[in-house]
Amino acid sequence: MTLDELIQRQRDFAAARDWEGFHTPKNLVMALSGEVGELSALFQWLTPDEAVACLDDPDLAANVRDEIADVTLYLIRLADVLGIDLIAAARTKIDRNEHRFPPLHS
Amino acid sequence: MTLDELIQRQRDFAAARDWEGFHTPKNLVMALSGEVGELSALFQWLTPDEAVACLDDPDLAANVRDEIADVTLYLIRLADVLGIDLIAAARTKIDRNEHRFPPLHS
Amino acid sequence: MTLDELIQRQRDFAAARDWEGFHTPKNLVMALSGEVGELSALFQWLTPDEAVACLDDPDLAANVRDEIADVTLYLIRLADVLGIDLIAAARTKIDRNEHRFPPLHS
Amino acid sequence: MTLDELIQRQRDFAAARDWEGFHTPKNLVMALSGEVGELSALFQWLTPDEAVACLDDPDLAANVRDEIADVTLYLIRLADVLGIDLIAAARTKIDRNEHRFPPLHS
Repeated sequence: MTLDELIQRQRDFAAARDWEGFHTPKNLVMALSGEVGELSALFQWLTPDEAVACLDDPDLAANVRDEIADVTLYLIRLADVLGIDLIAAARTKIDRNEHRFPPLHS
Repeated sequence: MTLDELIQRQRDFAAARDWEGFHTPKNLVMALSGEVGELSALFQWLTPDEAVACLDDPDLAANVRDEIADVTLYLIRLADVLGIDLIAAARTKIDRNEHRFPPLHS
Repeated sequence: MTLDELIQRQRDFAAARDWEGFHTPKNLVMALSGEVGELSALFQWLTPDEAVACLDDPDLAANVRDEIADVTLYLIRLADVLGIDLIAAARTKIDRNEHRFPPLHS
Repeated sequence: MTLDELIQRQRDFAAARDWEGFHTPKNLVMALSGEVGELSALFQWLTPDEAVACLDDPDLAANVRDEIADVTLYLIRLADVLGIDLIAAARTKIDRNEHRFPPLHS
């Protein structure tokens, strides 16, 4: 599945449930905050080493995948509703970051 | 640019600056929270209508694209560091959501 | 109960459970993000009017009180662990805000 | 200054600037997310030890105090706008936590 297909599936999913009215930019930003908060909660009491190894615990791994998926789905949906090309925006930003933070041995 | 190319560029970017030690799962979750917070701040005082039209204001549009890019870049990096395939995780979740929330007219 | 008594109760609560090792500044900031995320999730799909009236629905009211309490408890605990006087810090900031944002009819 | 005086000052501050219309529950939850995001950003790249010692660095200390103050001010304002007594809500929650998580040596 490509990113474009995922964007289209999210669009169809919302349309089929009449959820488009809920998917306003402000609401989707709040939903994104909610999901990033859940991701934070999964990691908050882990030591740095436990966090690195989080996929070794099957239950925790499932939860981490699940929350990362939720963040991705709301981010994709927010960008789509606003008419922003996620990959193009990220590329523009990384191009800028290359100049702002020159590499160590250039 | 594809998502895979973006993942690779983020990886190279961190390596060229010796930032890999900073990019632990906990730190990246905090960075993601920080960027989603900045996105929240852009929308917090807008009315729902102003938020829908946010790309019509060139300065605000640039800021929104910028913050959405930052969220995307940290999300991609976090998934990469953990060894999670973002698209596969999102697809698994949307498959599950299709069952949890049946469409209106099925 | 005063704020100082609440701070002390949080301190005793952590000590009695041997949770002081978990209550590092970074972990508490993540816990705070997690609770603010849960608060966000309660409000994300509400219309502005529904959000204003959220205490009229007993179940929602209980959840909102609960999440606001959680945010308060982690904020108090974070400030205490860092040695920051929450009220003094807030007063300093509101004094500064008075100058940064002059009132309309002064 | 007491918490009640701080609540009143925030109320007067918003009224004197005609900002009450902006201070809806949803907007204040987003503002709270924004400030917790800024707090997260201050701590994201610190090691656990650097985070513990953050008040030793005068610039970082000022920023941490500032962001903790902002979180406090929006939390107080949100509770006030909703008509929630912050201390009472927190006390109810800590009472409940005492039962949910029994102490080690009771």
